[in-house]
Amino acid sequence: MITEIAHITIDPAKADEFEAAVAAAVPHFVAAEGCHSMRLERVIEDPAQYRLCVEWDSVEHHMVTFRESEGFKQWRAHAGPFFVETPRVEHWDQAAQLI
Amino acid sequence: MITEIAHITIDPAKADEFEAAVAAAVPHFVAAEGCHSMRLERVIEDPAQYRLCVEWDSVEHHMVTFRESEGFKQWRAHAGPFFVETPRVEHWDQAAQLI
Repeated sequence: MITEIAHITIDPAKADEFEAAVAAAVPHFVAAEGCHSMRLERVIEDPAQYRLCVEWDSVEHHMVTFRESEGFKQWRAHAGPFFVETPRVEHWDQAAQLI
Repeated sequence: MITEIAHITIDPAKADEFEAAVAAAVPHFVAAEGCHSMRLERVIEDPAQYRLCVEWDSVEHHMVTFRESEGFKQWRAHAGPFFVETPRVEHWDQAAQLI
């Protein structure tokens, strides 16, 4: 299992609407093949910066199966209007759970 | 509870030694006041990039109590020699666990 991290920048004055838009898109992730969990985090030092963390079976489940699905279009229809720049996306592998 | 994320860049040829050095420093985090968990993740797209994720009771537990402790010096003594640049540190608040 890998974690997608999408670094998202928004106008912090619209934070409540953005968080509601992300919540409204949750069913599209629940329905996505290979999707295990999804959480939204916010940078304490900069309230314009969020990151969406999604656990997938593989990078391909995110970048191919999901990206080419109707669910991805729906996610972008909900959240995309709040992005002030194109999100930067990375995938992370857990090296070690230490504590 | 908040999450410290330290973005760490190393020479990927030294990944095994770096991961062993991080593991050797774990007791200093276990002993730190307000520290709840610690994990190490690696960027799939760029094996030089790691991030250390540590859950703390508060930003102050990390930036004041821990940073001024002997445990921090010991952590840096173990892992610091592998850093190719000064780690970038952020603190994150969970906005929502969605799935």
